[in-house]
Amino acid sequence: TNRFEHSSDSADKGEYRHYMLKEIHEQPRVIKATMEGRVTASRVLEQALGTEAGDLLKDVRHVQIIACGTSYHAGMVARYWIEDLADIPCSVEVASEFRYRKHVIQQDTLFLCISQSGETADTLAALRQAKKAGFRAALAICNVPGSSLVRESDLVIMTQAGPEIGVASTKAFTTQLVALLIFTLALARKNGLSEERETEIVQALHLVPGQVNDVLALEGEIAEISKRFMDKNHSLFLGRGSQFPVAMEGALKLKEISYIHAEAYPAGELKHGPLALVDSEMPVITVAPNNSMAEKLKSNLEEVRARGGELFVFADSSANIKPEENIHVVQLPEVHEITAPIVYTVPLQLLSYHVAVLKGTDVDQPRNLAKSVTVE
Amino acid sequence: TNRFEHSSDSADKGEYRHYMLKEIHEQPRVIKATMEGRVTASRVLEQALGTEAGDLLKDVRHVQIIACGTSYHAGMVARYWIEDLADIPCSVEVASEFRYRKHVIQQDTLFLCISQSGETADTLAALRQAKKAGFRAALAICNVPGSSLVRESDLVIMTQAGPEIGVASTKAFTTQLVALLIFTLALARKNGLSEERETEIVQALHLVPGQVNDVLALEGEIAEISKRFMDKNHSLFLGRGSQFPVAMEGALKLKEISYIHAEAYPAGELKHGPLALVDSEMPVITVAPNNSMAEKLKSNLEEVRARGGELFVFADSSANIKPEENIHVVQLPEVHEITAPIVYTVPLQLLSYHVAVLKGTDVDQPRNLAKSVTVE
Repeated sequence: TNRFEHSSDSADKGEYRHYMLKEIHEQPRVIKATMEGRVTASRVLEQALGTEAGDLLKDVRHVQIIACGTSYHAGMVARYWIEDLADIPCSVEVASEFRYRKHVIQQDTLFLCISQSGETADTLAALRQAKKAGFRAALAICNVPGSSLVRESDLVIMTQAGPEIGVASTKAFTTQLVALLIFTLALARKNGLSEERETEIVQALHLVPGQVNDVLALEGEIAEISKRFMDKNHSLFLGRGSQFPVAMEGALKLKEISYIHAEAYPAGELKHGPLALVDSEMPVITVAPNNSMAEKLKSNLEEVRARGGELFVFADSSANIKPEENIHVVQLPEVHEITAPIVYTVPLQLLSYHVAVLKGTDVDQPRNLAKSVTVE
Repeated sequence: TNRFEHSSDSADKGEYRHYMLKEIHEQPRVIKATMEGRVTASRVLEQALGTEAGDLLKDVRHVQIIACGTSYHAGMVARYWIEDLADIPCSVEVASEFRYRKHVIQQDTLFLCISQSGETADTLAALRQAKKAGFRAALAICNVPGSSLVRESDLVIMTQAGPEIGVASTKAFTTQLVALLIFTLALARKNGLSEERETEIVQALHLVPGQVNDVLALEGEIAEISKRFMDKNHSLFLGRGSQFPVAMEGALKLKEISYIHAEAYPAGELKHGPLALVDSEMPVITVAPNNSMAEKLKSNLEEVRARGGELFVFADSSANIKPEENIHVVQLPEVHEITAPIVYTVPLQLLSYHVAVLKGTDVDQPRNLAKSVTVE
């Protein structure tokens, strides 16, 4: 049994103004629920992916991730983890692209589909098509037990996010990341990851619910910053490495619920085009944890500032990025480099939520969008 | 000897108002020059990649493409070609991301770098780093003989674009595509591509210079359409399959020289977020050749139109897409599905050029950008 099944999070907003805000605040708890029964204090449990998973993971020589929208961004983070920790090549592709092109699948591939609902039409079609071509096994990361995706996969890690009502996904995304990190560690230990490194990362994962709580405590500060987006039509989100997909997810949230045209770029590509767009009307948001790329990111920030851009930096408090004219800095808790994408997602969720509230949009049901895209 | 070396295209605008326009109009000739000595009327010449290439290509089991900016978009088109025609898995990554993460390279990988200048700092750094890890061979697609990239690669296909002065790349991109298609065919024939299919595609390639000329003849019509972008701050570019990177390149051109925030999406992802942005202020540009995806794309167009979006469709004249209220259609020549990305790039170049001229920007030297990014 797990906490979520017994908890009261249901289709009820409770004290919150919107489902989305409630779901953002549920994250510390549902992240913990997604870890339960899958990790000890220091290790990933052998049975995290089911009893028969061990032998199967040993054979995997390639991981093909397929997803859409927010789930695709979770897959992109996982790619950085899988190549880094498991030393196994990983490809990620949007389901609607994968299913309609001639693709090559190696026989020793693990085919990993990510879908909150488990009913995303393009993702299911990609899985069914790939089955015909052949692969080693299919793994589903899904939030809805008994969904088509779960039924049609060999292995499953259920996220314990509980029902997600807001169309813009929040807790489903962060719990997908937790499930993907647990999967990565299970795969990596079959492929040479040291016990020390596994323990280091599992311990970092146990810190995440508390760190997300610390970020939630910054809501007032982030709501204050959101006022500066009220009259803006554009924005650019920058990240590097495993924070690039976090930037993509941050941009997608702002698009979905505030209708501000937000686009994400890997920070190193800035000079190859988008820098032409930067001026005082184009705020630039960046996630800058204190990892090996922080210095590089600082030089990108300087480029933006030199061109009159207004900067919003979400940075590790140890990264030593100071507020200056046109540079707003939100200091985040110190986090491990591997778990940083999970924690850094949360302030971007809060930012887009508060911008949308100020703009008066229909936060939980943005125009033109449906919760689950069960048709093509 | 090849035509370009003897021709007069030099750092001289001639009759043209801007280098960029001159370079757009040079494309039929430089595309032909890039084919010369590499294809017969019906086949790719064995020596297209140099005399020792044949044995080497036989061993290749994976292609890793590395590039930045526009060259990255060329690599993305090539990925569709390589998996389709050569049946070999292909990965494409932005150089600044690849070089700073722990990546996995298989030993039988062909490491393919694309750079107009051959001096792009991140691309060179990625190549040097990958060499240490080991791979089968390095292939360069480059426009500058004797550049660092050319000197440091095992195999080279020089594009014969001649000097490109405009910062926004045009003829370098389309000649990169030609070189990449020739490479794909050379690789594919070692891997089971039938002689009939090779001949079909080479014959289609010979038609490209004429088809590009036909597109250039539409310049007046495209200039007329560009007026509708004058007062716009945003736009969305849609494509599917190998036309998705063409949409990305079209969006990058508009960003670079007209400072309109243009973003590309694979059309199938529209429902997963960006559709929320679509209203009468957000024009949607789409490339819709008459291939197997045309029907799917038509349904995406309907979604956009139903939400008040203004649509600009560049479509194969045989695709049967008719202009309607809020749907502007530019009829393009009938093209083969494989060569379509080359031809469909050209109207998007013309569109961004004419929007920029109307907006009065510095077309050849857009703000904040340099021609070659030789520093990080």
